Amino acid sequence: MLTFFYAANTCARASHIALEEVGATYEAKRLNFAENEQRKPEYLKINPKSRVPALVTDQGILTETPAILVYIAQMFPKANLLPLNDPFRLAQIQAFNSYLCSTVHVAHAHRMRGYRWTDDQPAMETMKKKVPQNVGDCFDLIEREYFKGPWVMGETYTISDPYLFTLSGWLEADSVDPKRFPKVLDHRNRMAERPAVKKVLARESA
Amino acid sequence: MLTFFYAANTCARASHIALEEVGATYEAKRLNFAENEQRKPEYLKINPKSRVPALVTDQGILTETPAILVYIAQMFPKANLLPLNDPFRLAQIQAFNSYLCSTVHVAHAHRMRGYRWTDDQPAMETMKKKVPQNVGDCFDLIEREYFKGPWVMGETYTISDPYLFTLSGWLEADSVDPKRFPKVLDHRNRMAERPAVKKVLARESA
Repeated sequence: MLTFFYAANTCARASHIALEEVGATYEAKRLNFAENEQRKPEYLKINPKSRVPALVTDQGILTETPAILVYIAQMFPKANLLPLNDPFRLAQIQAFNSYLCSTVHVAHAHRMRGYRWTDDQPAMETMKKKVPQNVGDCFDLIEREYFKGPWVMGETYTISDPYLFTLSGWLEADSVDPKRFPKVLDHRNRMAERPAVKKVLARESA
Repeated sequence: MLTFFYAANTCARASHIALEEVGATYEAKRLNFAENEQRKPEYLKINPKSRVPALVTDQGILTETPAILVYIAQMFPKANLLPLNDPFRLAQIQAFNSYLCSTVHVAHAHRMRGYRWTDDQPAMETMKKKVPQNVGDCFDLIEREYFKGPWVMGETYTISDPYLFTLSGWLEADSVDPKRFPKVLDHRNRMAERPAVKKVLARESA
């Protein structure tokens, strides 16, 4: 049995969609970030980093989106979300997801979570100002270099698709016009039609 | 044939050590960051992100440390650097490496590369001030929660070991006393004795 901890409008959406895509049996538990539930002692026992997502499995607890996505794909091989026996393609998917977590998500986080890296309010404001440029540059690169189409990695839907969908959903809030990235925008629209995605979005807004 | 692009004193050291550990045949090409070689047109063709590491393979080019580490481990299975058929243990290794790339490395980067996230010089100074606390907090968590010993994941040396070694090598420069983390410090000392590590460090300083 799996228990999945998430919060609405966070990167946990990627793993959440993957759980639905593979047809996993799991319990979804929502944390309320507005009430700082991620910092309460009971959740720190689940994830001492006080972040989402976290996936509680029979063997232990997993964190970090790129790790959870591979785990879900590997545990449910029939869904064919990951070419685990093709080292180069697997590495391409991992490289894409690693770029999302270490560069794109981090660029975005400087808008709302500048306090992580400075204690100075005016400095946070200067970080916010640069977010549209940084996030825009990241998506330029994705559009131009990495997105193969129709899915991120080409003909086959993989764990990179729900992850890109999650982060491309933040473009407007980061003051970046998604129309600059026609392939990414088309991907976002097609993703939104998938039953797994609809189910997760409905649960997040319930 | 593999070609590996690196720069001295960067996170490319992790993949570089892994290449030596598995006994790979490869050509190492050093970029001089002081001369901004990573931004020159010929390197942008290799890695449009203008970062290291990059690994040129017969099938194409790979970037991002967590992806390259898994690729090396998978291509050289005799070295036993990754339990690829144990989804939970694989995910734990991936979660650890993902934390290093998306949180620990990012915390560190705010000391020297603040210009990535702000255009304001005084704001960069406020970021620098917070680096010792942020990096220290990350290593507190690693020491307390994630480091199993004697290697990162327990009895078996994995791709998490050269990656932790690389980032724990930055502690002093980030004004964090490594003695706060006895397990991480002991790990660093034992890593430094490995032939693969000695070879890479010698090449970097040649």
